[in-house]
Amino acid sequence: MTTVDESRRTAAPQAPTLADASPAARVAGPQEAIGPEELQLAARNHGIPLEALRYDVTPAGLHYLLIHYDIPDVDAAAHTLAVTGAVHRPLTVDLADLRGRTRVTRRVTLECAGNGRALLRPRPVSQPWLVEAVGNAEWTGTPLAPLLREAGLSPDAVDVVFTGADHGVERGVEQDYQRALPVADALREEVLLAYEMNGAPLLPQHGAPLRLIVPGWYGMAHVKWLRTIEVRTEPFDGYQNAVAYRLRRDADDPGTPVTRIEPRALVRPPGFPDFMSRTRVLRPGPCTLDGRAWSGHAPVVSVEVTTDGGATWNPAELDDQAGGEFSWRRWRMDWPATPGRYVLGARAADASGRVQPVEQPWNRGGFANNMVQRVEVVVLAE
Amino acid sequence: MTTVDESRRTAAPQAPTLADASPAARVAGPQEAIGPEELQLAARNHGIPLEALRYDVTPAGLHYLLIHYDIPDVDAAAHTLAVTGAVHRPLTVDLADLRGRTRVTRRVTLECAGNGRALLRPRPVSQPWLVEAVGNAEWTGTPLAPLLREAGLSPDAVDVVFTGADHGVERGVEQDYQRALPVADALREEVLLAYEMNGAPLLPQHGAPLRLIVPGWYGMAHVKWLRTIEVRTEPFDGYQNAVAYRLRRDADDPGTPVTRIEPRALVRPPGFPDFMSRTRVLRPGPCTLDGRAWSGHAPVVSVEVTTDGGATWNPAELDDQAGGEFSWRRWRMDWPATPGRYVLGARAADASGRVQPVEQPWNRGGFANNMVQRVEVVVLAE
Repeated sequence: MTTVDESRRTAAPQAPTLADASPAARVAGPQEAIGPEELQLAARNHGIPLEALRYDVTPAGLHYLLIHYDIPDVDAAAHTLAVTGAVHRPLTVDLADLRGRTRVTRRVTLECAGNGRALLRPRPVSQPWLVEAVGNAEWTGTPLAPLLREAGLSPDAVDVVFTGADHGVERGVEQDYQRALPVADALREEVLLAYEMNGAPLLPQHGAPLRLIVPGWYGMAHVKWLRTIEVRTEPFDGYQNAVAYRLRRDADDPGTPVTRIEPRALVRPPGFPDFMSRTRVLRPGPCTLDGRAWSGHAPVVSVEVTTDGGATWNPAELDDQAGGEFSWRRWRMDWPATPGRYVLGARAADASGRVQPVEQPWNRGGFANNMVQRVEVVVLAE
Repeated sequence: MTTVDESRRTAAPQAPTLADASPAARVAGPQEAIGPEELQLAARNHGIPLEALRYDVTPAGLHYLLIHYDIPDVDAAAHTLAVTGAVHRPLTVDLADLRGRTRVTRRVTLECAGNGRALLRPRPVSQPWLVEAVGNAEWTGTPLAPLLREAGLSPDAVDVVFTGADHGVERGVEQDYQRALPVADALREEVLLAYEMNGAPLLPQHGAPLRLIVPGWYGMAHVKWLRTIEVRTEPFDGYQNAVAYRLRRDADDPGTPVTRIEPRALVRPPGFPDFMSRTRVLRPGPCTLDGRAWSGHAPVVSVEVTTDGGATWNPAELDDQAGGEFSWRRWRMDWPATPGRYVLGARAADASGRVQPVEQPWNRGGFANNMVQRVEVVVLAE
């Protein structure tokens, strides 16, 4: 990878290279505001509008979306999934075959690994998420493990590589989007080959006609527009595993892989908003604050709420885990709103002992953030 | 309205006012980059991913969305629409009544009046759209005019005010979202009370269970979550008509109303993208460029395409106007791609004589922009 600066791009030769189109990864300068390329990404990849935290299941079009390249144009009728590599019986199946297999529906919270990136200081320059890169949908499909067993994994299988139909270039590397799971993770019974979302065939932007669902993991693992599964006997060193989705201190740190979702709670903003600032306006009186909490490591066991920007915390009540172990969970807390200015937030803890930080540890890619949200509220005099 | 600066907001009194939550309208400074409030709006209001220009009808979840306040939680079973004011027979109807009336489906291109705002210099500070605030859906409902005739318009009726269930504050003014149409525009046969989009009940974010569709007009006229229609004998002076959606030179200019959509063509970006820059990469060879063009004033009669950033233009071929007179129209042009760097764009002209400008005239709200898009392309050596 080569650093591409603006002067070089302007003076490009007649036959440009991939590097001319593809800037290197970088971190914004101390005073550098959101730039045109980040804004362009924000305009196409959208988050959940926070009031949609009211829905147990996120309706179509409100679930977050992060699409690395373009949404590909895939013909569902002609689409096939190939299982190849270190297997005894390579196989190719179509959608009708997959729909004829065991049918399972799971409610799963998906969150982008880069959620919260734009709040980091310094800011890694990429999709500039604040807190809204999340959704909770019902995914229907067939479990992956039986298909892998049918193909017959080689005893020395190490990684399973999932390849989508989306093609692009990223930091100078031309690629189909490709992510590997260690064999043990690929064989988890919860992992699905999903062809429906919320009871309807997948929408183009969610991976139509087929995607992977890896409950508990950040979004980068849930490969969309899935077309091949390749079993490998050596660790996969593709871009999205070896370069992109790693927790690094700096550019020279090999880092560690981004895997499961860190615990997070969000407040559903109360009252009504100002159009521009999104500051919330309430009138005095009893108010029930609520929101959602989730973790990909272990069940959420507690949520605490602050109304003073983190100075003090009070326990929230947790609803039953009605959506299953991979679905977000509703929390609520009564709050007598009296005139003044407030900063609301919530923090989740899970059964693995992980708790959301108020000060966010930093990493160079801006991944796996779960800093506490800040919701500015004014309660009027009347 | 009061200007609220940061120092004042920090030193707010114990009982804040609406002005503390609601900054005044302003224009960014000459060097001012996109700020946190603009980014927050970009994260919740999303545009069409430009590759989705491939679809004649924009699928659910890919259509642009601009929501002033929050998506309200409306119970479709209990929802009613009241027709009141200067009418002989005020009436209230429910969804079942509306569904029992004449059923019409129209394919209509909707565009946000603020599309292109973030490309203006200086930049009006609001939702920072680039070029992607558009969609083309099939809206099903019943025509408005028969309902108004049934209620019996007073002979001195001037404006018809449409009120949604969404509530918020904007530039210091607390309001339900409310927009008026002149009576003659409200009585156009094409105006619909729509309860379906693309053959399914409206999604929450598109105005469920009922919205107005005003073919040819910018999005602000298509009131979502519609609950009352009030006929007035004096011109409506509500915020969204009298203050917000006006073409003004400066803050003191009373301006003129924003109404119909100016002509615009977009290029569907060819090849494949770089993740970060969205620069397009192609290999040399024959390529067909295509895209969409529309105008709310009159049919599109020509589209011209540039591959050199506007220095030279070539005519594109226009497909039939298959979707009806209010639907965008596909254009295409063969382009032999040879190695080098290019800036693609397209400009539409309509039968009213309007043509897209290469240099954008400026207005203080950043409305009705239709400057030519710039799509950066590199064609590699091989």
